[in-house]
Amino acid sequence: MTDPSGSPTRSQWSARETELLAVTLELLQQNGYERLTVDAVAATAKASKATVYRRWPSKAELVLAAFIEGIRQTVVPPNTGSLRGDLLALGNAIRVQSGRHASTVGAVLPELSRNPALGDAMEYVFVDQRKAVMTEMLRHAADRGEIDAAVISDELWDVLGGYLVSRQILPGRPATEATVTALVDEVLIPSLTRTIHTDR
Amino acid sequence: MTDPSGSPTRSQWSARETELLAVTLELLQQNGYERLTVDAVAATAKASKATVYRRWPSKAELVLAAFIEGIRQTVVPPNTGSLRGDLLALGNAIRVQSGRHASTVGAVLPELSRNPALGDAMEYVFVDQRKAVMTEMLRHAADRGEIDAAVISDELWDVLGGYLVSRQILPGRPATEATVTALVDEVLIPSLTRTIHTDR
Repeated sequence: MTDPSGSPTRSQWSARETELLAVTLELLQQNGYERLTVDAVAATAKASKATVYRRWPSKAELVLAAFIEGIRQTVVPPNTGSLRGDLLALGNAIRVQSGRHASTVGAVLPELSRNPALGDAMEYVFVDQRKAVMTEMLRHAADRGEIDAAVISDELWDVLGGYLVSRQILPGRPATEATVTALVDEVLIPSLTRTIHTDR
Repeated sequence: MTDPSGSPTRSQWSARETELLAVTLELLQQNGYERLTVDAVAATAKASKATVYRRWPSKAELVLAAFIEGIRQTVVPPNTGSLRGDLLALGNAIRVQSGRHASTVGAVLPELSRNPALGDAMEYVFVDQRKAVMTEMLRHAADRGEIDAAVISDELWDVLGGYLVSRQILPGRPATEATVTALVDEVLIPSLTRTIHTDR
């Protein structure tokens, strides 16, 4: 399932299937996981139940396909020519995307402990895909001499995304473009350009 | 409701009420918000329904009281004498606390859009309380000359907590003590000790 190049994968679904997944996301956001039924998805999309069940035999499979499809459309690795430009572009893409899907993430989170397949799907979206994009971006910055390659961290590559997602899914302080700019200029760039002691 | 000193507020509940709130948290983590009933809380705690309903007339009020009580017990502003020590202490407290309550946060998130009182309670826990603690800590560091007071940011005071919460509630990569140490040494200290241009 993972695409190691980090580039956005092409959709595996037909136009009709993509429409069913969009309806699923919409109903999920309105009603939450618990109250979503495959029958309601079929009825809203004016599809036969058989069509839906043939593709996605269970609600969990339908929901995770919808979720991955919803996110897939916005995973594009930036390539602006500078680290700052790339971080701003990626940060704003994550901000918009997680703002749009905040209620879906919220609707799906309680289900994770009961449903390992959904957990794997979320991990794919929030870990594997983003790590590939971020690592590629930082490697380009190191190639350009903007940062020391030693700052690329297996532990903390996701501060940009993790922090922005927390602002979007917790109540009260949705991130703005100014949030992303401040995060890049006041936190990430000072961190990524810090002095590294190489005598480790 | 806000305690401007940022110090942990004393519980307003009796021992018996605290017990009911603990049972509520437990059932919430097991079953999610949707499937939780006040009757089940009363039955599990061997209390009469009237006792529970007299204190908390609705499920939403019961849940938010339980949630605030669960978090209250761990909001302690650190005072280790150094910025690094304070950040490590607070980071580890947030890591442990949000790891413990990850499933509750998950259970409550889908309810937020439908229930403004719950949203306000989460905002109190995740914004007001933490901001008071963090601001006090940074002011002490500025007083000791460890940082320039100009780095204290209204936009980004919550990078420590926001990032750690995202690691605890999203699947796949729960934060460890090493995560907190790396976050403090590689991200927060370089950010807070960066050169500030004061000719703004």
